[in-house]
Amino acid sequence: MDYRQKIVEELENLKIEFNEERNFDVIAIGRACIDLNAVEYNRPMEETMTFKKYVGGSPANIAIGSAKLGLKAGFIGKISNDQHGRFIEQYMGNMGIDTENMVIDQEGHKTGLAFTEIKSPTESSILMYRDQVADLYLKPEEVSEDYIKQARILLVSGTALAQSPSREAILKAILLAKKNNVKVVFEIDYRGYTWVSPEETSIYYSLVAEQADIVIGTREEFDVLEGIKDGKNEDTINYLFNHTPELIVIKHGAEGSSAYTKDGQTYETNAYLTKVLKTFGAGDSYASAFLYALVTGENVETALKFGSASASIVVSKHSSSEAMPTVEEIKDLIAEYESNN
Amino acid sequence: MDYRQKIVEELENLKIEFNEERNFDVIAIGRACIDLNAVEYNRPMEETMTFKKYVGGSPANIAIGSAKLGLKAGFIGKISNDQHGRFIEQYMGNMGIDTENMVIDQEGHKTGLAFTEIKSPTESSILMYRDQVADLYLKPEEVSEDYIKQARILLVSGTALAQSPSREAILKAILLAKKNNVKVVFEIDYRGYTWVSPEETSIYYSLVAEQADIVIGTREEFDVLEGIKDGKNEDTINYLFNHTPELIVIKHGAEGSSAYTKDGQTYETNAYLTKVLKTFGAGDSYASAFLYALVTGENVETALKFGSASASIVVSKHSSSEAMPTVEEIKDLIAEYESNN
Amino acid sequence: MDYRQKIVEELENLKIEFNEERNFDVIAIGRACIDLNAVEYNRPMEETMTFKKYVGGSPANIAIGSAKLGLKAGFIGKISNDQHGRFIEQYMGNMGIDTENMVIDQEGHKTGLAFTEIKSPTESSILMYRDQVADLYLKPEEVSEDYIKQARILLVSGTALAQSPSREAILKAILLAKKNNVKVVFEIDYRGYTWVSPEETSIYYSLVAEQADIVIGTREEFDVLEGIKDGKNEDTINYLFNHTPELIVIKHGAEGSSAYTKDGQTYETNAYLTKVLKTFGAGDSYASAFLYALVTGENVETALKFGSASASIVVSKHSSSEAMPTVEEIKDLIAEYESNN
Amino acid sequence: MDYRQKIVEELENLKIEFNEERNFDVIAIGRACIDLNAVEYNRPMEETMTFKKYVGGSPANIAIGSAKLGLKAGFIGKISNDQHGRFIEQYMGNMGIDTENMVIDQEGHKTGLAFTEIKSPTESSILMYRDQVADLYLKPEEVSEDYIKQARILLVSGTALAQSPSREAILKAILLAKKNNVKVVFEIDYRGYTWVSPEETSIYYSLVAEQADIVIGTREEFDVLEGIKDGKNEDTINYLFNHTPELIVIKHGAEGSSAYTKDGQTYETNAYLTKVLKTFGAGDSYASAFLYALVTGENVETALKFGSASASIVVSKHSSSEAMPTVEEIKDLIAEYESNN
Repeated sequence: MDYRQKIVEELENLKIEFNEERNFDVIAIGRACIDLNAVEYNRPMEETMTFKKYVGGSPANIAIGSAKLGLKAGFIGKISNDQHGRFIEQYMGNMGIDTENMVIDQEGHKTGLAFTEIKSPTESSILMYRDQVADLYLKPEEVSEDYIKQARILLVSGTALAQSPSREAILKAILLAKKNNVKVVFEIDYRGYTWVSPEETSIYYSLVAEQADIVIGTREEFDVLEGIKDGKNEDTINYLFNHTPELIVIKHGAEGSSAYTKDGQTYETNAYLTKVLKTFGAGDSYASAFLYALVTGENVETALKFGSASASIVVSKHSSSEAMPTVEEIKDLIAEYESNN
Repeated sequence: MDYRQKIVEELENLKIEFNEERNFDVIAIGRACIDLNAVEYNRPMEETMTFKKYVGGSPANIAIGSAKLGLKAGFIGKISNDQHGRFIEQYMGNMGIDTENMVIDQEGHKTGLAFTEIKSPTESSILMYRDQVADLYLKPEEVSEDYIKQARILLVSGTALAQSPSREAILKAILLAKKNNVKVVFEIDYRGYTWVSPEETSIYYSLVAEQADIVIGTREEFDVLEGIKDGKNEDTINYLFNHTPELIVIKHGAEGSSAYTKDGQTYETNAYLTKVLKTFGAGDSYASAFLYALVTGENVETALKFGSASASIVVSKHSSSEAMPTVEEIKDLIAEYESNN
Repeated sequence: MDYRQKIVEELENLKIEFNEERNFDVIAIGRACIDLNAVEYNRPMEETMTFKKYVGGSPANIAIGSAKLGLKAGFIGKISNDQHGRFIEQYMGNMGIDTENMVIDQEGHKTGLAFTEIKSPTESSILMYRDQVADLYLKPEEVSEDYIKQARILLVSGTALAQSPSREAILKAILLAKKNNVKVVFEIDYRGYTWVSPEETSIYYSLVAEQADIVIGTREEFDVLEGIKDGKNEDTINYLFNHTPELIVIKHGAEGSSAYTKDGQTYETNAYLTKVLKTFGAGDSYASAFLYALVTGENVETALKFGSASASIVVSKHSSSEAMPTVEEIKDLIAEYESNN
Repeated sequence: MDYRQKIVEELENLKIEFNEERNFDVIAIGRACIDLNAVEYNRPMEETMTFKKYVGGSPANIAIGSAKLGLKAGFIGKISNDQHGRFIEQYMGNMGIDTENMVIDQEGHKTGLAFTEIKSPTESSILMYRDQVADLYLKPEEVSEDYIKQARILLVSGTALAQSPSREAILKAILLAKKNNVKVVFEIDYRGYTWVSPEETSIYYSLVAEQADIVIGTREEFDVLEGIKDGKNEDTINYLFNHTPELIVIKHGAEGSSAYTKDGQTYETNAYLTKVLKTFGAGDSYASAFLYALVTGENVETALKFGSASASIVVSKHSSSEAMPTVEEIKDLIAEYESNN
């Protein structure tokens, strides 16, 4: 076997190890919200008169995507004590997600809303309702060690760090995950409007990323984490591999994504070309398929393909949550794509 | 002419006098919001998947209703600097309302939302988004004396008194209206969820009602104003006629409404029976038609009929604003009703 | 009797009438605080190392001054649940003031503090601690109609209008006073640092002044009330005598003060020259002696002299509260002054 | 050399190593406040009429104590833009502390105050003014990496973690200290009234303690950190030595204190008996002398003695800051104590 062949095999065999004996493949923590997607689109929202309701919010989408792929998923979060909150819990429960640790808010906080505007495939925007929303009021005492220690992965969404007491609930969940040997996956999930200042964001993102096992984000999100502009992937991994992380995924939008492992390997994948309706939900579908692949024992290279294919499917559809693909759809797209390239 | 005949003629002739030489029949001040009405109804909102967008909010609805009836209307309020705010301004402008004094919020506040749930004609509820909404951030310095003095009527919505700085903007508008001989119409428009406590509500409602020329509300709303339970109309009018008011309208829902004048007259009207889809918007359509009648020189008795007929039309339709009737529709319903009774 | 003589007699006889049959001459409502006066003075506060503790706060000082003059005084206000709050209640009780309606805060609010710096007789400043102080948390439900109706005068301090819920407590007290035929004396007592904006101050000051029976303030304070600069007394009284007030006192510092009555009379008095240690407390001692004179049946002219003499005594001493003069001291100063002029 | 002798020598030689080439021995970060100490004591504060002003606040006291012992000290904190803030800066500057990184608040926040009540040597209490005080408004962008990297020790006071933005400023300072190889000393300094909940305190204390090099606190403070009651020193050190700390000092009040090192050594010292006037300031004087000893190359055992002796001197005097002892006073007390025992 020649040297090149050996490297290829090593790369193909690189896998991340998770605890085998846990009740949940992944427990996501953070927000579960409502998306109100424009029914009449290709126009400004002022002219959209009807909106369709979906569950949304990055960690909820990832839990839904994971469950649809067959993982055993749980969710920790706070939902409003009203029709929107009940819809979210019912929908996620129906998708097979464990909702026992979804706490019902008792202080009148509302569910976050995202009205989506789809002007054209490349021009879309979101009108957010995020003031004093229920998900940001999850309290540390509502996070259970007994629950977290049942997980192979704790998926942490960066937005949940934006405000107290949700911030402290997340910090506690991470302390508990590390104490109980649960892998912490940090999806940076940066939404500027929820934060007081970029300086503050950088501080909490650094604190959490330094303690996470896997960090996933776009190049722009890593820049926010590092408090810099136009950062380079090499500097990012040099910084973070000095701390806990063993796997870092940096996404470059239409140009694909890169995965770096602590032992020095780099993997690249292209974005899968597709008919784009809107860009919402791409990151969440990427993360759920990527984690699915890792957890089911695929190597990092395959996991990257899963992520890209899943993202490609969701951006061609109307919602972020209902559109989450099955394993078969992902595999079909990868196969089709590879036969064409 | 016998005595009874004389009384009847007096009653029929009783009218409220307004300034003739003003640019606006009515300027309404307070909130303009978005209603998101269930498209699929006769079910709980959890099962409603599509919502239709309308302009809403009591004073906005009254301005729209007045404009549709042919009055010259203006509006003072603060709207969000986003797609929802722009939709509101465009819609109201298209209805013929002067929007020059609608201020665009520069601090990131959102438009208030009301998701309506229509389970059945008698069971409906509203899921409100009212935290830190733009309308409650209208500032006193954004209320213009030059504008208010152009009005025959300043219509004040009680909800706008619920929080600072909107509260102070309203108090200033009233001071300016009185200084410039503009009739103040106080629509109590009580929404408990915007207030800190019933005690506080009662204090501001009393302060404003004592200074208003016309006060309109339901029996329950006058109870809130007086800080009591099961109040009697007689006590209410004894109290308020000791102060500025000259006309008081107390509504009793399906049992009709009563108008009292300072000179001791009482007028009653029945509710107009109709096919009820939902009860939202009844009060706003009542107020706009009632004021229309008064301003155009109808007597109080006729104004009451206008109010009741208008309310009856709106509760049979899907929206509160778009459903506002024309003068012809109102007159037709009154004629039909009177021919049947 | 010639015409001139008649006018003189009328002026001398002009008195304000109060209810005779009440338990309290005056009930003051608003703040009771702590003054920490520089022990080492004639230097900047940075170099003052020791401070002496006194009760302070305009309405507390007025209650103390009134009690010392022999009036039956009561006080409505909220005090902190700590050593400072207890000192205030004990001190005021020892002065003969009824403290039954002083409410002890249960939410951890502190007593307001005023550190006084005395650089020279003409240069002094106050370093205030007024963030979230107990007095501003008096709630409307803690204001008792049974208590207020026992007073001949309700003395309202303008600073208590600066923030909720104290603002609403004051507005309620005024509604109750008017309902029960208690004279409302409005001491404008403007402290800019407690207010959000001059616009807001002007709105609440106007609302209250229009409903008060007697309004007392400096020329600058009336400017704040009217929302203008360099206002004229004539415009002020034209405005306010269109509403409830029957007596208006406008102070011009070292140039003396003027009293105007609704029936068109004007009274002037000089400031009493004295050795000035500091200017703090002048207004409070003025008000207490002025009200004392009116309540005990003196005419307006004499009441003005009492006010001026009392102010003169307090500014020559170290504190605002303990320095409040007796009737004898005031009368002696007036006599001395008149014999010299 | 027998085995026992060897252990004794090892223990005696155990020292903590610090960077030699830095401009500052210690930079403290956190609050600098005003103490107002009862001049008339042995009575309840209600009866204390005069108060003497001192600089106070744990990290300010430690900086003052260190400077008095001859260390080169700097301070990072926010002070009020008024007479109290200027007094603090002048006083600390006069003590030889570098004040270049003390930021003057521009938003009207006040200096924190502590009125001390000394009823008897064993009964004393503090009346705190800590609402919205300037020190809690230090912002992360006001913490300079250029400054921190000049220090051998960054002394962090736990109270500064209680609220944002001070919390984030501290977290940033720690990130910068670790990046620049500055030893982090965490003085737990728990003040319950500044915190929202014990749960939140425990989360931030854990996060910081896990990253600190030296942790100092009372047994009760470590219980707060661990979120438990009646914790045992052994469990505490087992937990923390799994993370960054190399030296942990746990104080047991009158029963003395213990120091634990990561390599398994334990040191104990008694409290030095003394005439106690009040207990305030004991911890700060302990910390400054303990750090002085370590930084000047004394072994841990001697450092403990320095801490105890310094605390003993301060509790016998009226203030916490001015009473900080000199090296000579400490050495004399140790010598005297050892000759008697």
